[in-house]
Amino acid sequence: MLALVFDGKQPGLRTDYPDPQPARGQVLIAVRMAGICSTDLEILKGYMGFTGVMGHEFVGLVVQGPAAWKGKRVVGEINCPCGRCELCRQGLSNHCAARTVVGIAGHDGAFAEKILLPAGNLHEVPAGVSDEQAVFVEPLAAACQITRQVRLGPRDQVVVLGDGRLAQLVVRVLRPRHPNCLMVGRHAAKLEAAEKAGVQAVPAEEYVPAGRADVVIDATGSAAGFETAMRAVRPRGTIVLKSTVAAKTGMNLAPLVINEVTVVGSRCGPFGEAIRLLASGQVDVSPLISKVFPLRQGLAALQAARSGEAIKVLIEIGRQ
Amino acid sequence: MLALVFDGKQPGLRTDYPDPQPARGQVLIAVRMAGICSTDLEILKGYMGFTGVMGHEFVGLVVQGPAAWKGKRVVGEINCPCGRCELCRQGLSNHCAARTVVGIAGHDGAFAEKILLPAGNLHEVPAGVSDEQAVFVEPLAAACQITRQVRLGPRDQVVVLGDGRLAQLVVRVLRPRHPNCLMVGRHAAKLEAAEKAGVQAVPAEEYVPAGRADVVIDATGSAAGFETAMRAVRPRGTIVLKSTVAAKTGMNLAPLVINEVTVVGSRCGPFGEAIRLLASGQVDVSPLISKVFPLRQGLAALQAARSGEAIKVLIEIGRQ
Repeated sequence: MLALVFDGKQPGLRTDYPDPQPARGQVLIAVRMAGICSTDLEILKGYMGFTGVMGHEFVGLVVQGPAAWKGKRVVGEINCPCGRCELCRQGLSNHCAARTVVGIAGHDGAFAEKILLPAGNLHEVPAGVSDEQAVFVEPLAAACQITRQVRLGPRDQVVVLGDGRLAQLVVRVLRPRHPNCLMVGRHAAKLEAAEKAGVQAVPAEEYVPAGRADVVIDATGSAAGFETAMRAVRPRGTIVLKSTVAAKTGMNLAPLVINEVTVVGSRCGPFGEAIRLLASGQVDVSPLISKVFPLRQGLAALQAARSGEAIKVLIEIGRQ
Repeated sequence: MLALVFDGKQPGLRTDYPDPQPARGQVLIAVRMAGICSTDLEILKGYMGFTGVMGHEFVGLVVQGPAAWKGKRVVGEINCPCGRCELCRQGLSNHCAARTVVGIAGHDGAFAEKILLPAGNLHEVPAGVSDEQAVFVEPLAAACQITRQVRLGPRDQVVVLGDGRLAQLVVRVLRPRHPNCLMVGRHAAKLEAAEKAGVQAVPAEEYVPAGRADVVIDATGSAAGFETAMRAVRPRGTIVLKSTVAAKTGMNLAPLVINEVTVVGSRCGPFGEAIRLLASGQVDVSPLISKVFPLRQGLAALQAARSGEAIKVLIEIGRQ
């Protein structure tokens, strides 16, 4: 099959990638559309030491698997847990130490014609949610996770650092209940996109971190964002860390101690909630789609996602 | 007066340091005894850019000030807030942006014959608590702060990284209610001191961080401790950060995101609770005193505190 594969050095398009063979409990899905995430770009820099088919945001059709799922249009959670360990039994299967993670760790991803997933990872996509919307379920769920981890007051001053893919979803999730939500970013067009969704947005060069924000969400995708977050948050405030980067960076955590700041690492989130936000129209992701490439132009798609200009780059697969 | 002063480059003993003159609301205290803390050693490396009389852990006698305090033996909180700003009004005066901090920021410290403090910072020392014990009130309060910030279950697996001054106090505060408290350190004699207090202790070279601890307290005083903490804590666990260091260190916070860890910065704590722990005998600090120097040997005292061998080095002042 056609697949966009990272070999540990560079990404490449392969036409002869072996078709995945479902094991027991696994479902074979024909991918219809996939999205490129910052994590994919970090993987190209060596994050997680991943090799294989890239990609973890997708929507597709079940072509082989349990009868209940066959023919269904689905999205899939990316953590594939063992189901037996202590963490799995505690309901923390997203953190199972033996897990594989789609397109990130030990599990071929979605930038391919077909993908395998455990049946337990699937969520059906309602008819009213298009493929272009459905591909946002995974990152939108990650944005929703913040509200599950941090108690946000309606009047709290929330600063979202970053104006990229994830930051755009975060402000759209928060804005309805947290009007004092401010986006800080480096790209005029992206800030404008947030403003059109009713979010206050300021250019990074005009933003002076003043140690007054109740909650700062670092969705910059860069290690430098954390330093800004430490300067922006108030004493006893909270930093939500959403960025995973491949490299070490020089930093000093003393401000966390001095100001008794709480940092909350935040990763994957509730798919059901994300699907509801899309189906109800509460979150409109269509303005975030910068460009759609066919899979055979996958390398160009990665290139476009890497440019500072694009918000979300999608890869069309089964429908091309 | 005699004072141990840091001039921004090196510490030096001065015999001609000007006697402090109390302003309105300030109390003049004749220092009897002071303690050397890791923060003092970081200040010698440039932490906080402090210059002036060093030291913030002390016990002394009030020699000038409000009648209610005169002649009393006291310890003092180190944050001197403005009392008027929003944070002060919210009860977060320890985080007042305009504050000075004794021996750390804009306020002469306790390694001198006399020190000034606002009357509101004072706590009387009960007769049953010796000077040698009282000098531990400030760091013991900092240890107590952990139990105010983090909800610790009685069966939680708690790992304290570090075997130095603060770590020794932390394990003594935690052990009675949290028997699954493990100290990890690099100094056989210090680990033995903890074991004598009933604490499990293992050498760092025998400790394999396995990502299973519910709570990890980094009291190493080194940036490397945080990396170990990230490997030791379980998914969704908590790291309490107690170390403030002067330098930037290369680190990657991705494990916080991946494992959805919470980091809690923790600094100063409740003096009242620390005094009660000492007065009741629940915490015995006497085995932690490695050596007592007179103030005129202050440089030798700093040197002793810097060696890996000493736990707590005290400086005797008014009593010499």
